Amino acid sequence: MVKVGILGAAGYTGGELIRLLLNHPEVEIIFANSESNAGNKVYDVHEGLICETELEFTDEMPFDKVDVVFFCFGHGKSEAFLKEHSIPQNVKIIDLAQDFRIKGAHDYVYGLPEIHRAEAAKCQHLANPGCFATCIQVGLLPLAKAGLLTNDIAVNAITGSTGAGQKPAATTHFSWRSDNFSVYKLFNHQHLHEICQTLNELKPQGAPHVVDTLDEGFDAEGITVDFIPYRGDFARGIFCTEVVKLSEAKTAEEIAQLYKDFYADAAFTHYSDKALDLKQVVNTNKALVHTEVFGRKVVVTSMIDNLLKGAVGQAVQNMNIMFGLDEKAGLHLKASAF
Amino acid sequence: MVKVGILGAAGYTGGELIRLLLNHPEVEIIFANSESNAGNKVYDVHEGLICETELEFTDEMPFDKVDVVFFCFGHGKSEAFLKEHSIPQNVKIIDLAQDFRIKGAHDYVYGLPEIHRAEAAKCQHLANPGCFATCIQVGLLPLAKAGLLTNDIAVNAITGSTGAGQKPAATTHFSWRSDNFSVYKLFNHQHLHEICQTLNELKPQGAPHVVDTLDEGFDAEGITVDFIPYRGDFARGIFCTEVVKLSEAKTAEEIAQLYKDFYADAAFTHYSDKALDLKQVVNTNKALVHTEVFGRKVVVTSMIDNLLKGAVGQAVQNMNIMFGLDEKAGLHLKASAF
Amino acid sequence: MVKVGILGAAGYTGGELIRLLLNHPEVEIIFANSESNAGNKVYDVHEGLICETELEFTDEMPFDKVDVVFFCFGHGKSEAFLKEHSIPQNVKIIDLAQDFRIKGAHDYVYGLPEIHRAEAAKCQHLANPGCFATCIQVGLLPLAKAGLLTNDIAVNAITGSTGAGQKPAATTHFSWRSDNFSVYKLFNHQHLHEICQTLNELKPQGAPHVVDTLDEGFDAEGITVDFIPYRGDFARGIFCTEVVKLSEAKTAEEIAQLYKDFYADAAFTHYSDKALDLKQVVNTNKALVHTEVFGRKVVVTSMIDNLLKGAVGQAVQNMNIMFGLDEKAGLHLKASAF
Amino acid sequence: MVKVGILGAAGYTGGELIRLLLNHPEVEIIFANSESNAGNKVYDVHEGLICETELEFTDEMPFDKVDVVFFCFGHGKSEAFLKEHSIPQNVKIIDLAQDFRIKGAHDYVYGLPEIHRAEAAKCQHLANPGCFATCIQVGLLPLAKAGLLTNDIAVNAITGSTGAGQKPAATTHFSWRSDNFSVYKLFNHQHLHEICQTLNELKPQGAPHVVDTLDEGFDAEGITVDFIPYRGDFARGIFCTEVVKLSEAKTAEEIAQLYKDFYADAAFTHYSDKALDLKQVVNTNKALVHTEVFGRKVVVTSMIDNLLKGAVGQAVQNMNIMFGLDEKAGLHLKASAF
Repeated sequence: MVKVGILGAAGYTGGELIRLLLNHPEVEIIFANSESNAGNKVYDVHEGLICETELEFTDEMPFDKVDVVFFCFGHGKSEAFLKEHSIPQNVKIIDLAQDFRIKGAHDYVYGLPEIHRAEAAKCQHLANPGCFATCIQVGLLPLAKAGLLTNDIAVNAITGSTGAGQKPAATTHFSWRSDNFSVYKLFNHQHLHEICQTLNELKPQGAPHVVDTLDEGFDAEGITVDFIPYRGDFARGIFCTEVVKLSEAKTAEEIAQLYKDFYADAAFTHYSDKALDLKQVVNTNKALVHTEVFGRKVVVTSMIDNLLKGAVGQAVQNMNIMFGLDEKAGLHLKASAF
Repeated sequence: MVKVGILGAAGYTGGELIRLLLNHPEVEIIFANSESNAGNKVYDVHEGLICETELEFTDEMPFDKVDVVFFCFGHGKSEAFLKEHSIPQNVKIIDLAQDFRIKGAHDYVYGLPEIHRAEAAKCQHLANPGCFATCIQVGLLPLAKAGLLTNDIAVNAITGSTGAGQKPAATTHFSWRSDNFSVYKLFNHQHLHEICQTLNELKPQGAPHVVDTLDEGFDAEGITVDFIPYRGDFARGIFCTEVVKLSEAKTAEEIAQLYKDFYADAAFTHYSDKALDLKQVVNTNKALVHTEVFGRKVVVTSMIDNLLKGAVGQAVQNMNIMFGLDEKAGLHLKASAF
Repeated sequence: MVKVGILGAAGYTGGELIRLLLNHPEVEIIFANSESNAGNKVYDVHEGLICETELEFTDEMPFDKVDVVFFCFGHGKSEAFLKEHSIPQNVKIIDLAQDFRIKGAHDYVYGLPEIHRAEAAKCQHLANPGCFATCIQVGLLPLAKAGLLTNDIAVNAITGSTGAGQKPAATTHFSWRSDNFSVYKLFNHQHLHEICQTLNELKPQGAPHVVDTLDEGFDAEGITVDFIPYRGDFARGIFCTEVVKLSEAKTAEEIAQLYKDFYADAAFTHYSDKALDLKQVVNTNKALVHTEVFGRKVVVTSMIDNLLKGAVGQAVQNMNIMFGLDEKAGLHLKASAF
Repeated sequence: MVKVGILGAAGYTGGELIRLLLNHPEVEIIFANSESNAGNKVYDVHEGLICETELEFTDEMPFDKVDVVFFCFGHGKSEAFLKEHSIPQNVKIIDLAQDFRIKGAHDYVYGLPEIHRAEAAKCQHLANPGCFATCIQVGLLPLAKAGLLTNDIAVNAITGSTGAGQKPAATTHFSWRSDNFSVYKLFNHQHLHEICQTLNELKPQGAPHVVDTLDEGFDAEGITVDFIPYRGDFARGIFCTEVVKLSEAKTAEEIAQLYKDFYADAAFTHYSDKALDLKQVVNTNKALVHTEVFGRKVVVTSMIDNLLKGAVGQAVQNMNIMFGLDEKAGLHLKASAF
C-alpha cells in the first residue's frame, strides 16, 4: 500500500483527491492536512463523503510516515512551503500547482504521461500539469511532434466553474454565472508557459519556434498559441478547439492515423472518429480527441474533466506510474454521462 | 413626472429598479445613492445598462428634490436609516425591506395590491411585501377570505438564487448550486410573520386562527403554515405549492371560480385553467395561480418572479397606485420565456 | 463471475447499467440486447464508453449462457415480454420496470434492501423499486415501522430530467426545461402503489391504514400520502421532503436515533446529522436522510440519484445480494460533487 | 398603427414576435397564422401570454388587411410559400428565413441596419439576417470597412439552445445538453454566405477577397472566415470572439475609436470599453462589442440575444425603419440580467 499525505486537503482538488484515493485499491491516506479545519471530519467539508470515511483533517504533517505527498495548494504556495519545511528525500512529491512546471533549478518532472511516462516512473518530484495545459496539449502533441505546426494556432477553450476554485467571487456567483458566458485572461493565460515549453521540446529540428508570448512578447519570431479561455456555465470540464494550418497537406485519414498512433499506448487519452461532447469525459480521467480537415487546416477538438485528467486524476495516474502500479488503478470511474 | 430617489442602488433590487424605471414613461430618476460607488456610472455596476443611461451613483440624498424614495437596503437597515436621517413629510417612502411589514407603531401600509390597493392609494409610507410572502399569499388569499382554511397548510416554495442577494457565499457559489437542491430555514422563514398577519386579517369571524409559529410556537392553538423553502438551481423566480384541506367540500369548478372572482380586478395576478411552469412569469410582474381539487384537498400552484412581483416590480406597481398612475405603467415586460 | 444479459440496453437505464457493470469485479456482460441497434458498438449509443468496451448490441437473447437478466424496458413491457418469451428457471430476473412491484400472482420480491434483503438473497425474480418510491420510502420507513404515522403525509419530491427517459419531448426540451420548474401527476403518481404497499406492510397492528388513493380514492378511511412530484432543472437526482405528524411526541434526538438504528446495517442508506444537499449523492448509490422536529411534526429530507439508487445502482445492489457477493461490489462510485 | 400579419406564428420566433408586438405602441396584430393551431388561443402555445391577449391562431391569411407580413417559417419555406401564394404589392414582407439573404433575382434588401438602414427604409421586401451572421458581422464590420482584414479570421461563437428551434431532438434534450458542450457544422455553417457577402461588399478596393468556402472551397484565393459554432448549455444568446490579424499596426485606442465611430449612429449596437458577459444583452435587442489588441492582432468580442437582435428584435427594428417609426419603438426591453 502506498502511504499518502495530502496538503491543502480542504480545497476543491484536495476533496476530489480524497474521493479518489478512498476507492484506490493500493493506497492508504495517512494524513489530510488543513490548518483551518484541523480536528474536523473530512466529511464536514467534503460533505458527500459522509459514511465513507471517518478521516479527520489534521494540522500535523508526519512526512516520515508517508511515501508520497500531494500538494493541493494554490499556485505559488508550493515553492514557499518548501522553503519553510523540509520533506525527507525518500518521500515523493506530486505538486498540483504551477510552481515547478517550467524547467529550472529543480528536479521536478513535468508529469504529462502522454510524453513523459518514462521520466515520471523514475522521478522523486513531479509537477502535475495545469488543466487547460493538459487539454490543449493532448490536442496538439501529435501535430507538434510531426512538425506540422506552421502558423499561429487558434485555441479556444471553455472551462467549468470548478476551475476557478472554492473561494466565492463575483464571477463564481450562481446568479451571475448561470446562463452566462465570458472570456478572461485573453491571450494571457499562465498555462501558455507550459504549453509552449512542451511544443518546443517536441518539435523536430527546423520546425518553427513556438513563442511564449507572455515572456517573449507578440512580436517575437515564430508561431504563437492564440489562446482564448472562456468561462462556461457548467461546473466540470474543459472543451477545447485548436485550429492548425499544416506545414504540408494531409488527408483526414492521415491526420486521424497520426493521432491514433501517437496515443496507442496512452492509458486515458483516446482518439474518437466521431464528433465529441463534453459529458463523455465528465467525472472520468479520460481525454478524448477528434480531428477534422478542411483544406490545409485541421480543427482539433479535445476535452477533459478539469478536476480529474486536468488535476487530481492525472496526479493519481502519475502516482501510479511513479510507484509502478497499474496506471489505471483507482481511476476506473463511471462517467456521469448526464 | 414622478421624481424618484433610490437608496441602496448598487444591490440586486436597486439595479432591477433602475432597469425598470429607465423605461417607465412617467418617472424621472433624480438620484441613485450608493456610498461605496459614488461617482461611478450606474452601468459600471449594473453592466447591462451600458448605453442606456449616463446616470452616476451619488453619496448625496437630496430628498427635497424627489416625490418618492425607494429603500433598497438589506433587512433591518431601513428602520436604522430613518433614526439617523429625516425625510420630508411630503416625500413618499416605499420600503423593500421587511422593517415595516408587520403592523405596529408606524404608518406603513402593507403593499399587497390584491388586498390593499385602496389603502396604498392614499398612503405616504408603504412596506413592500417579501418575495415568498407575495407568492404564498396570492396562492392562499381567496381560500382565506372564504373561510375555507381549516387545517395546517403544507407550503413548499422553490426560489432562485437572486433571492439570496448579491454577496457571494458558499451557497451561492456556482460550483455548489449548479444542479444542486437543498432546503433552508425549514419551518422558520421570517416571511411567516407577514403571511400569518394577512391570513388572520382576511379570515371571516369564526374561522380558525392562523398561528405565527415563529412568535407563538408550534403548540399554540390554531392552524399553521408549514413552509419549506428550497434553493433551486435557477436565478429568477419562485414556484410554490400550497396544499389546503377545505372546511367544506367544493368542486374543482367552484374553487377555480373563487380564484377568478377574487382576482378579477387584479392588474398582474391571474388564474390559469392549465398547469403552470415557472418561465411563464420569469422577467415579468405577473403572478399566476392554478388549482386542482382531490377529495377535500386543494392543491394550489402559485408563482412569481422574485425580483419583480416579489420585489421591485411590485414596488413600482405600488408607486403607480400611490401616484394615481396607470397601475401597469412601466411594467409591460416581455417574458423571457426561454 | 456472474454472467449477465441486458434487455433494453440502449436506453438510459441500460446505458447506466453497462457503465456500472464494466467496472464490476465479479460480472461479465454476455449480451446487451437492442433490436434497433443490433450490430452497433455500445459506445455508438452510450458515447462515453468509447475505448472502454468493444461490446456490440445484439438482437439475440442467449438466456442459456447467463446467470441473470436485467429488464431495462419501459413500464408494462416486462410482463408482455414474458408472455412471448421463455426464460430458463435457473436464470434470475431483475426487472427495473413497475410490472411486478405490487404483490400478486407472481413470485417477484420487491427489492428494497433496507427491508427485504433476506428475501432478495433467496429469490429468483426481483422487482426493482421505482426512483421516487425508493427516495420516499427511505424517508418514511423508520416512522412507519415505529407506528408513528398518524396523519396525512405531505411529500414533495423534485426529480431530474433523466427520470423522464431518453425520448425527446416538449417537457424535456432544453429550451423549456432550463431554469424552469413545474409539477406533474399531482397526487396521482403511479409510485404511490408501491409506497403504500410497503407502509402498510411495515406498520404495527393498530396503526392507521395508508390509503392508496389511486385505487381507493380520496375519501377512503386512513391516512394518505399527498405526493407532489416536481420537474427540476437538473439531470440527475431526487430531492424529497416528507412532513409527518407523529402519533406521539418525540424529541429530535429520539427521531434521529430511530433512523440511525433502522439504517445501522444498510449498505448505502445513511442518516446525516446535518442538512443535506442533492449533490452529496449524485452519481453514487447512496441514499441520505435527515430529520428535524417542530412540535409534533417531523420534517424528513431524503435524497438519491434517480438512475443509481433509484434504478440500476439498486438493481446491481440487489444482484450482489442475490448472488451472495459483497453488497457494495461495483458500487464504490466517486460522487461527482460538482 | 401598422397592421401586421404573422406566418408561422406558433414557432419560437413567431411567439417571440407576438410577445414583442403586443407591447409595441404603433402596431396592431391582424392575424397570426398557424394551420395546425387554428382556432386555439395564442396563449395555449405561447403560454406566458395568458391574460395578455385573447388573440387566436388562424388558418386564414387576409393579406389585404395588413401593411406588413412577417415570415417566421423554417428555412427554405419562404420561397416555396411565395410560389404558391400571392401577396399584394403594397404589403411589405419581412422574411426571417435565409431564403433571400443572398443577392439574386429578387428585390429583398439584406436588413442589417448597421449598414443598410437607408435601403431598408425604402424597401418593400426585406431579408432579416441570421443570428450568428448578425453577431459575427457586428464584430467585423468596422475592420472590414477600414480594409484591415488581411488574414484568415478565427471566429468562435457559442449559441443557446433556442437557436435550434422548437422541435425536440437528441441534441436539445435537457438530459444531454445540460452541462454539456459541443461543436456542429464546423467550418460549414450556412451563415458564412451572408457574412462573406457583406464583408466583400464593405471592403475597400484592393483589400483581399473574402472566400465563401461553402461555395468556393478551401483552396480559393483570399482570406477565409474560420467559423466554429458551439452548442452552449443556456437557452438564449450568442457569444462570439473574432481574431483578426491587421493589415497594419494599430493601437488599442485606434481600434476602439474605429468601432465607436462606426456605431455612433447605431440604435442598438454599442462599443464597450470593458470586457463583456453574455447576460448584458440577454432579453434585449442590443449588440455589444469589445476589442483588445495584442501585437498585430485584434480580439473582438461580440454578443447578442439570438431571438431578438438575432431574429425578431431585429425584424421589428427593420419594420420600424421601413415604416418611418422610431427605430427603437417597442424595443425598450428590460435585460433579464440574471
